[in-house]
Amino acid sequence: MTKTTRLSGENEIVRFLQTRYQGKSPFVKKGIGDDAAVLHPRNAQEYWVVTTDMLLENIDFRCEWTTPWQLGRKSLAVNLSDLAAMGARPRFITVCLALPAKTTESWVREFYAGLADLGRASQALLIGGDLSGSESGIQISITAIGESLRRKILYRSGGKPGDLLYVTGVLGRSAAGLKLLETGCVHPGSRRQKEALRCLHTPEPRYATGLWLAQTGLVRCMMDLSDGISADLPRLCAASKVGAEISLADLPVFAPSTEWGCEPRALALHGGEDFELLFAVPESKAARLEKIYPSAFPPVTKIGRLVPGAGQVWVLEPGNKRSPLPALGFDHFRP
Amino acid sequence: MTKTTRLSGENEIVRFLQTRYQGKSPFVKKGIGDDAAVLHPRNAQEYWVVTTDMLLENIDFRCEWTTPWQLGRKSLAVNLSDLAAMGARPRFITVCLALPAKTTESWVREFYAGLADLGRASQALLIGGDLSGSESGIQISITAIGESLRRKILYRSGGKPGDLLYVTGVLGRSAAGLKLLETGCVHPGSRRQKEALRCLHTPEPRYATGLWLAQTGLVRCMMDLSDGISADLPRLCAASKVGAEISLADLPVFAPSTEWGCEPRALALHGGEDFELLFAVPESKAARLEKIYPSAFPPVTKIGRLVPGAGQVWVLEPGNKRSPLPALGFDHFRP
Repeated sequence: MTKTTRLSGENEIVRFLQTRYQGKSPFVKKGIGDDAAVLHPRNAQEYWVVTTDMLLENIDFRCEWTTPWQLGRKSLAVNLSDLAAMGARPRFITVCLALPAKTTESWVREFYAGLADLGRASQALLIGGDLSGSESGIQISITAIGESLRRKILYRSGGKPGDLLYVTGVLGRSAAGLKLLETGCVHPGSRRQKEALRCLHTPEPRYATGLWLAQTGLVRCMMDLSDGISADLPRLCAASKVGAEISLADLPVFAPSTEWGCEPRALALHGGEDFELLFAVPESKAARLEKIYPSAFPPVTKIGRLVPGAGQVWVLEPGNKRSPLPALGFDHFRP
Repeated sequence: MTKTTRLSGENEIVRFLQTRYQGKSPFVKKGIGDDAAVLHPRNAQEYWVVTTDMLLENIDFRCEWTTPWQLGRKSLAVNLSDLAAMGARPRFITVCLALPAKTTESWVREFYAGLADLGRASQALLIGGDLSGSESGIQISITAIGESLRRKILYRSGGKPGDLLYVTGVLGRSAAGLKLLETGCVHPGSRRQKEALRCLHTPEPRYATGLWLAQTGLVRCMMDLSDGISADLPRLCAASKVGAEISLADLPVFAPSTEWGCEPRALALHGGEDFELLFAVPESKAARLEKIYPSAFPPVTKIGRLVPGAGQVWVLEPGNKRSPLPALGFDHFRP
């Protein structure tokens, strides 16, 4: 970063912090720069995994589009998705909540009810937090602490050229839901629209799948998709010091979004908030992983492979034309 | 809380969360409602202590009154004060930072430099965080993780009638500094004014003192003073199921603030952000504590005692008149 300019990209600030402030400690297995930090408490049997995420009114959500129950649940979901990305089991959460004076007590109750419902399902226990007034909308920040199982943690780093790339679930469905709200085209009766809105408002963090994948020993690196493949995959590539090639035709897109004017492939590449898992598997182990992958989990789809290179991501279009993938995913500080 | 009304006090929301969502877990020694949560990682040698605090622009600070270096340092200081209150050693921090688009890179660098300077001094390592754009001012929330020493932790609970009440340092100095800024009466040459402003902008969290006090085995309960004695002492009393009596004449006030129109006793009772420690010692152990208390630490002052009762706090005025202490300390949601 240069001294006189405005903020540059999120990635650049994170790199600055990594370079300048990444400290060493016998208790830190992984510090700044992954989906979560990995700590080893003195003599403890397992690692602890720590992540934190903000949700801000009019940036991450609009009160007219979400209920307090959905917002409470989603605030926790985005944090649990980061634990999922490491293969950690959710354990504890702290919640910072800043509220405008007009907020009602029933709003507060419903917010915590949504949060606690997912907390109960995921075994994440509310252990503390901070409350504040706000002069400028609702502000939420949550810290989630997870626990490893048999110290098996997956990082963004560790991927090698030749590894096959997989994603869980369907991509671009949440972004299609957001598009519906932005364009005011919601038809309450449409099953497809309901599905898109459900993904947007009540995303399902993949902690059970992430834990299972970490335990198999077949996966080389993993992260969650929160800002879109085109923003997130380059981060995995940078951490693994590789490039990647993804096949457009293989993306598990949400086709029905064409009904309301979306381009499903564009949303799958650049739409955020999917909260699915992206992971790489050595080619020699891919068949075994596909064979033992539990049918109860969201489907996995092979979307490409890691290639030599330093962070570049390529798209294979139908007909095998190869072009660089532009980073159009979400970045808070892109000019 | 009733369903239809506006937010009531902070304490009432915390009580609601405690009653409704305080879960049980073999890993949780202390959950919602103290200065920090206390966790026991599986088979670990020590407890881990987790706390979180927000600082919001125009609520907790004004950019025209503080430098980014001071703000970064103070954001960490308020969290380390909560670890100090438990007698824990600072270990790790995560930082959520939401920034308006106009923020410069030099602002970001200086903010983290202030934070990291105190981090280095206290051995608290930056391990992660989240960055976001903001449409409404700078928003900071930090989570700090500390470690016990020999599992000796102090809580707000545990105080008994008859215990003597002590505070560290001087009270009302930071509030006197804020008054200076609010009234625009700053004289750059004044040594006393500089002292008050230094306490406001670069508070010294008492983690070394807190750790020492917890190790002595002479202290029964402890908390930090962030919202003023009149708001904080009733919280300690409620947790310990006792009352308290404090002697106005014995408060370690900041007398020079009269020079700029302050009432030092009122600021000592109701002014916030002192970040000193408040603790109770059995009468039989008080002399020993005072004798071995290291002179390198901030002075301790006996200000009163715990008495039977359920959370009531009394003030002994000169002449031994006893009156209830009104809660005028800081509460975000007081109507």
